[in-house]
Amino acid sequence: MPECFAMDHRHRVVFEHDALTAGTALIEMLRVGDAPARTLFVVDDGLVASRPDMLSTLDTFARTHADIITPAGHPLLLPGGEACKQGTDPGMTPVVDAIRSRGICRRSTVLVLGGGAVLDAAGFGAAVAHRGVRLVRMPTTTLAQGDAGVGVKNGVNMPGVRGGKNLLGTFDVPVGVLNDPTLLTSLDDVHWRAGLAESIKVGLVKDAALLDAIEQDAAALTNRDLPTMTRVIERTAALHVAHIVDGGDPFERERARPLDFGHWMAHELEATSDWAVPHGEAVAMGMCVDLLIGEAMGITESGLAERMQHLLRELGFLQWPVRDVGPDTLLDGLEHFRQHLGGELTVCMIQSPQHAVDVHAIDAGAARSAVSTVLDVNASGV
Amino acid sequence: MPECFAMDHRHRVVFEHDALTAGTALIEMLRVGDAPARTLFVVDDGLVASRPDMLSTLDTFARTHADIITPAGHPLLLPGGEACKQGTDPGMTPVVDAIRSRGICRRSTVLVLGGGAVLDAAGFGAAVAHRGVRLVRMPTTTLAQGDAGVGVKNGVNMPGVRGGKNLLGTFDVPVGVLNDPTLLTSLDDVHWRAGLAESIKVGLVKDAALLDAIEQDAAALTNRDLPTMTRVIERTAALHVAHIVDGGDPFERERARPLDFGHWMAHELEATSDWAVPHGEAVAMGMCVDLLIGEAMGITESGLAERMQHLLRELGFLQWPVRDVGPDTLLDGLEHFRQHLGGELTVCMIQSPQHAVDVHAIDAGAARSAVSTVLDVNASGV
Repeated sequence: MPECFAMDHRHRVVFEHDALTAGTALIEMLRVGDAPARTLFVVDDGLVASRPDMLSTLDTFARTHADIITPAGHPLLLPGGEACKQGTDPGMTPVVDAIRSRGICRRSTVLVLGGGAVLDAAGFGAAVAHRGVRLVRMPTTTLAQGDAGVGVKNGVNMPGVRGGKNLLGTFDVPVGVLNDPTLLTSLDDVHWRAGLAESIKVGLVKDAALLDAIEQDAAALTNRDLPTMTRVIERTAALHVAHIVDGGDPFERERARPLDFGHWMAHELEATSDWAVPHGEAVAMGMCVDLLIGEAMGITESGLAERMQHLLRELGFLQWPVRDVGPDTLLDGLEHFRQHLGGELTVCMIQSPQHAVDVHAIDAGAARSAVSTVLDVNASGV
Repeated sequence: MPECFAMDHRHRVVFEHDALTAGTALIEMLRVGDAPARTLFVVDDGLVASRPDMLSTLDTFARTHADIITPAGHPLLLPGGEACKQGTDPGMTPVVDAIRSRGICRRSTVLVLGGGAVLDAAGFGAAVAHRGVRLVRMPTTTLAQGDAGVGVKNGVNMPGVRGGKNLLGTFDVPVGVLNDPTLLTSLDDVHWRAGLAESIKVGLVKDAALLDAIEQDAAALTNRDLPTMTRVIERTAALHVAHIVDGGDPFERERARPLDFGHWMAHELEATSDWAVPHGEAVAMGMCVDLLIGEAMGITESGLAERMQHLLRELGFLQWPVRDVGPDTLLDGLEHFRQHLGGELTVCMIQSPQHAVDVHAIDAGAARSAVSTVLDVNASGV
């Protein structure tokens, strides 16, 4: 019997200013054949709160392109942040329900605008309803435009299952991702800087020049200069996409995960704080921990931890109030990370910027000391 | 930015007698690296009911191969038939819960033994937990060994969503499929013959010789001759797998679905009878309907409907009691099928055995007449 076949995928990520009012790329992603295609808008309610004109902008967009799309009813609003991945139903329930009741099929599209959590919930719903309908993403935060929104995975929580956080998900390539930097101007400061933690991560792992640029432009970034932020996010997204497309393991079948640098403690910190610590803040702390461990174990070049700590502070990180979470709890993150990967622990460590290495054992004393140090540094900044 | 990449897939389907006690293929599918891999057994309770020794057989299998697998606790029993896809939770909940609580990760395996519905529920759970864990299938019915179990899709119902039947699912290639014909001997007559409806379907669409062979061996098949049934199922599975691997559209991105021949009415009949009509019986009736429509529309060669009706009767089909379902209800199936595909209706019709054609419009009068005729034929056989 024949056995082998290949599936071709195209992962399109486009940057365009004023995509909904003056752009051309988004509507091309939504085009399906010759007749107007039904399109379900799913919108982060945080986006609507900060941009009250968003719903009328979407309405105008749909009217302008009535020859290409037909809206499948009013936009479906989802609560932003972890809330939309929780609840008594699986987080994708409202999305799946809308896909069914509004006649979205494999020849129509779900267009989702929002931060990472809303992209996840809508993406998972679109991936499993009718075994997958077309998905177009418009990430609206720095974190989503540089990192989560340009990836090829999604994840939601499983209700009624203990430890069900991010238990459900799929790897799926969206039809397209449209990053509109204009949308970043309405973010609060925490969400504005959040993506920079992932930019520093990807710089450490893959691109020393990006790291240098962020250091040079730290003041402009802190002062919310949009062109500077756009340059950083574009480079971050490009490195992320190249990792997926050219890295040889787009759906993470292997254990090495360089883009998870600094994330084992970050995930544990987020979960144990019941998601009070935002992802960007947690990743900033997690990277400092892994750099300190790396230095103690003789892997990481001396001084890099100090250099990154300084940079992260300048950008506003490492001063988030962390309450009631001690080092011992956070160290559980290593074991949870091992279980998630399956079998052997594999942690990405940095030798020097752009030179990453996989490590399969972490010195317990060094880890404990590093976590304590970073918690102290962080507390002193509050 | 780079955009395109390809994913390689390997879809292994192996036939082996006494796979659990004397075989070699199954344990190779379960091997992961050098250390014993955690393996969660998910078992159709209908299989255990008809083969009370199945659980001890599995226990012995695991002990014999303790160097390759470690069972992740006792086998998880799922109710067979549509029941395991329904309920207040999504059908995959017990599977996802067991995957989490018993430490199944991407380096361990879910081994599922059962009919199509249990394979679906376990397959969907394995596909979405941790974004996909390894799945090995042992289909235990003729229908599953020739058709559902050797495909690359799964589907379950969405609770709390009206019209949520088979709403959730993914396309996913299992690590392997092991068909053990020995398991077919304990099936009741309805499940024994059910797979033959799909064999006749695939014969009509792709292989006139298979159709001839089934006609020639009809008596042996009815008399439960295992070698004859095994030959038919092997050929059916091989044609199904070739369609996936070599057909150019393994994940059904296009609208043409030759393997859905006869299925639009079958699906409607199953659903409107609240699943009282088994899939094989419904497909037998659905094929007769489409052959009659084809003849009335001048597409299908004259006499083929009569020939197939005779064969299906001889095998035991076309005499299942259908209650309270009229032609008008069943004709809704065409519209539902169109919605499922999205946009334009595409129905596979047969010109002559091995010569199928896609049709985009069905004559309403011919359809109504065909459905009435088949319902009458069926009723006369009760």
